[in-house]
Amino acid sequence: MKQPDRIILGIDPGTTIMGFGIIQVLNNQPKLVQLNELELKKYKDHYLKLKYIFQRTISLIDQYHPDEIAIEAPFFGKNVQSMLKLGRAQGVAMAAGLTREIPITEYSPKKIKMAITGNGNASKEQVAKMLQQMLHIKILPKNLDATDGLAAAVCHYFNYGKSADTKNYSSWSAFVKQHPSKIN
Amino acid sequence: MKQPDRIILGIDPGTTIMGFGIIQVLNNQPKLVQLNELELKKYKDHYLKLKYIFQRTISLIDQYHPDEIAIEAPFFGKNVQSMLKLGRAQGVAMAAGLTREIPITEYSPKKIKMAITGNGNASKEQVAKMLQQMLHIKILPKNLDATDGLAAAVCHYFNYGKSADTKNYSSWSAFVKQHPSKIN
Repeated sequence: MKQPDRIILGIDPGTTIMGFGIIQVLNNQPKLVQLNELELKKYKDHYLKLKYIFQRTISLIDQYHPDEIAIEAPFFGKNVQSMLKLGRAQGVAMAAGLTREIPITEYSPKKIKMAITGNGNASKEQVAKMLQQMLHIKILPKNLDATDGLAAAVCHYFNYGKSADTKNYSSWSAFVKQHPSKIN
Repeated sequence: MKQPDRIILGIDPGTTIMGFGIIQVLNNQPKLVQLNELELKKYKDHYLKLKYIFQRTISLIDQYHPDEIAIEAPFFGKNVQSMLKLGRAQGVAMAAGLTREIPITEYSPKKIKMAITGNGNASKEQVAKMLQQMLHIKILPKNLDATDGLAAAVCHYFNYGKSADTKNYSSWSAFVKQHPSKIN
């Protein structure tokens, strides 16, 4: 299927590291534009972390003008506190996209791994190696959280036209439908 | 203790209703400025809800120019999915405050109830009745989520100068220190 030329920003938001990658889809092929991470461990103040996530996402949008944003969003976590923190990190990144009116699609880690490697349980290293080959990345970053952000962008590229629910940003709604007992 | 004259915006962010209230502290006394809610149940799209929370918070800030924001933020929830959703709702409201550079302080529901009624386990109705007396509210809204937002603002008024951790926006950090086993 012929895909439209466009720019995709992929984000893996967390409160210790936010990984992000940008690809440009040109003549149906993805090309690496940017691969990096925002190191948040050094900031102890929770609000400062959220502020930097918001600001960096806004500045990425304003610098690269992505047409779409893909976010790695786990639906499950170890405990309610970590999910609240993760939700906040996702929320501020989403607010940046929403305020610039850029469509957001979320993908579970499993779906991203599946899209990149064909195996939903692939390791971070396997995902990174595959991205390296695909996008001709000379040197991978030491920390693989950056490639997690990039992987979300590439997953979005692979999922073009595939399913109505991801295109209409309703993966949360789809999740709720599939797991009604897990949602209040 | 003499308090500075200022405007406080209180928010109770949720994905079905966002309650909010604004008070003006003038000559050490709180005065009601605004009490309302944003009804989100009717929007099925999760992103649309987040967008409206962000937009309404921004517009409240731009209209009333609050000096401080107080947020009702439960630290515990029934399950990880509801906490992720709640975290996102809090995140977008916080992003609005962060982007306008307004200090944010969070209070647990228990602390808010305690500040307003003297009883951390008070009912919503008891909190609302107390706010009605204190702020001379003629008619209470039918839905008490609006008064929950107002209660956060009034709690913030009562906590002026009381503790370093709420003044420095580090209630999350304080929570982490007190409950290290609950945080990843």
